Amino acid sequence: MNSHREIAMSRHWAFVIRHSLPLAALLVCNGCAHQPSTTAAAAESEIRAVLEAQVRAWNAGDLRGFMEGYARSDRTRFQSGGDVSLGWQTVFDRYQKRYGDRESMGVLKFSEVAVNVLAPDTALAYGRWRLERAQDAPSGLFTLLFRHAPAGWRIVHDHTSAADKS
Amino acid sequence: MNSHREIAMSRHWAFVIRHSLPLAALLVCNGCAHQPSTTAAAAESEIRAVLEAQVRAWNAGDLRGFMEGYARSDRTRFQSGGDVSLGWQTVFDRYQKRYGDRESMGVLKFSEVAVNVLAPDTALAYGRWRLERAQDAPSGLFTLLFRHAPAGWRIVHDHTSAADKS
Repeated sequence: MNSHREIAMSRHWAFVIRHSLPLAALLVCNGCAHQPSTTAAAAESEIRAVLEAQVRAWNAGDLRGFMEGYARSDRTRFQSGGDVSLGWQTVFDRYQKRYGDRESMGVLKFSEVAVNVLAPDTALAYGRWRLERAQDAPSGLFTLLFRHAPAGWRIVHDHTSAADKS
Repeated sequence: MNSHREIAMSRHWAFVIRHSLPLAALLVCNGCAHQPSTTAAAAESEIRAVLEAQVRAWNAGDLRGFMEGYARSDRTRFQSGGDVSLGWQTVFDRYQKRYGDRESMGVLKFSEVAVNVLAPDTALAYGRWRLERAQDAPSGLFTLLFRHAPAGWRIVHDHTSAADKS
């Protein structure tokens, strides 16, 4: 008779517990010098390192290395213009189709990058991207949702837009 | 001599405490039937209600009502294509400039809307937008970061992109 309420309560506690764990980790690890991701500043620094590694991989022509920045999940999402790519492999396929050779990859630069750590396991990063290529230099904006996974901070949602060509 | 470490520790605790408060609210309010935003399902429902209120306001020609969905903050951010609007007022100005009359506003529809509650005070919503107008029907995607403020759930970061016209 109370099953609906019990399910609701159990969901409630699942939510509380899920969000308590990173907090518990923060509390337990206070003072663990070898666990730097326990502060917001360290989380930001780790996320910036992921983005810098992506840029280095891209500019070395290494799309698979670039993809290391994304969570290896079927729920990883890339949206751009009016198109959605769902799942790490689908996102990788899209990049391979559009940037199959060094000429189309060009030289990637990120600028005006901001990282907001929203919770111990969640952060939003945003900024500008630009590709310097022989024939053109497309640019635009990105918004990235990062979650902290066992492998480190990884992008789970990427919304990228391109500036109008003028 | 330990001041650098003390500052780091104090920042650490500020971060822990800031992220403990919503959790404490969750723990304290377990069972408070009149505080529905303490569960993820209720948070999602409140966020969907904000989006539905935005659509109703837009379709009534009420841009100011539509803007109620955004946090009244100088840090509220709207990015689209290659352009960034920073601050609630700047975002409002942009909407007024682009959608100054009913004809350019058209009829707004959201579809495929998903809401992911990431923490007790943080959620990501994304989906498709479409404007049905007399002469055209632009469409595209949106990604919205919601934070829970005293006024309720509000958008603090909006990344919107338009599908290529074909």
